[in-house]
Amino acid sequence: MTRSTGEQQPVQPIHFWFEFASTYSYPAAVRITKVASVAGIEVVWEPFLLGPIFREQGWNDSPFNLYPRKGAYMWRDMERLCEAQGLPFSRPEKFPMNGLLAARVAVLGKDEAWLPDFVRAVYQANFAEGRDIGDPECIADILAALALAADELLERAGQDENKKRLREHNERANALGIFGAPTFSVGSELFWGGDRIGDAVAFARLGPSPEAD
Amino acid sequence: MTRSTGEQQPVQPIHFWFEFASTYSYPAAVRITKVASVAGIEVVWEPFLLGPIFREQGWNDSPFNLYPRKGAYMWRDMERLCEAQGLPFSRPEKFPMNGLLAARVAVLGKDEAWLPDFVRAVYQANFAEGRDIGDPECIADILAALALAADELLERAGQDENKKRLREHNERANALGIFGAPTFSVGSELFWGGDRIGDAVAFARLGPSPEAD
Repeated sequence: MTRSTGEQQPVQPIHFWFEFASTYSYPAAVRITKVASVAGIEVVWEPFLLGPIFREQGWNDSPFNLYPRKGAYMWRDMERLCEAQGLPFSRPEKFPMNGLLAARVAVLGKDEAWLPDFVRAVYQANFAEGRDIGDPECIADILAALALAADELLERAGQDENKKRLREHNERANALGIFGAPTFSVGSELFWGGDRIGDAVAFARLGPSPEAD
Repeated sequence: MTRSTGEQQPVQPIHFWFEFASTYSYPAAVRITKVASVAGIEVVWEPFLLGPIFREQGWNDSPFNLYPRKGAYMWRDMERLCEAQGLPFSRPEKFPMNGLLAARVAVLGKDEAWLPDFVRAVYQANFAEGRDIGDPECIADILAALALAADELLERAGQDENKKRLREHNERANALGIFGAPTFSVGSELFWGGDRIGDAVAFARLGPSPEAD
């Protein structure tokens, strides 16, 4: 990429890649809206599934279960992060939950104003209320609480066309080289982890430095 | 831990756990000194070896080699981080290097004023100059450049008593539940990753919040 000095760069959107079973995506889903809003940056919400990506790496479970030290650290870290952000948190008895249904609803609502509220409500159900987000009743409750037509949305979420859209999200995540959640992408540039929101924002505003072109 | 309101808390030191083969420990070894100095916090430098800890998790190589996507991300991320910090960086042909000898020297110099400079010079040799830090000649050069008695230090580094001190560092890392580098510890609290220096500093200054006790 070549850039003339003094030329105004368009601010690029940040793509926020999240998986509903991912603990660290929960505080990130709250922070990204605030941080991007202050910075005047558009957020594109990108639901995807980590399961197929983990399986490619040879994992049939969350690395937080496969590697107990990482898991112990993560649960303590989540307590701290949620407390620092003023978010309710309670370690769920079952982890990870099945986020497939919620991801299908999120893909369906990708361009809808209710999407961020839906996403945050699902994370809160999973990581604060101990509800099973794989249960259609739980997702229906969340949609109803947002004054949405739960039955209709759940039906449309399960239709082939919508399933295909979620698969396309996963293919794009794969093509970008995404391996965990949350991940922020700006163009082809990845920032992995909620603690890298600031770096993603800086990159979106400033672009790559000329040396890195 | 109980705390009376208004009582002045002593600021706890931050223990900086680093492994010489660890990429992300390089920019962290530069930043920790600056950040802690501004915050008025003591840093305890804690060299350790990741190899034995990785082997316990079933890894016989760096996860950045075992999981190519993570590796591709990490190398790009290192470019960005070093550029942002104004640090020289060049991806070494061989990764990971053997950090055992350097770790032994670091343990020997644990309470010496030259330790931080030695540590940063080893990282620069590895991740900017493409030198083999497992080669005693490389470590001798670094010590000599710091006006230290290289031959004597290398000899003392290899003595049983010093080897034992490094093993004790690893045992303490194990007991803390450390699983990667860099890690910052404050008491029993862990912060994993260079991007968490700020959180470690805040914790060292403020301690756990009363709710978390």
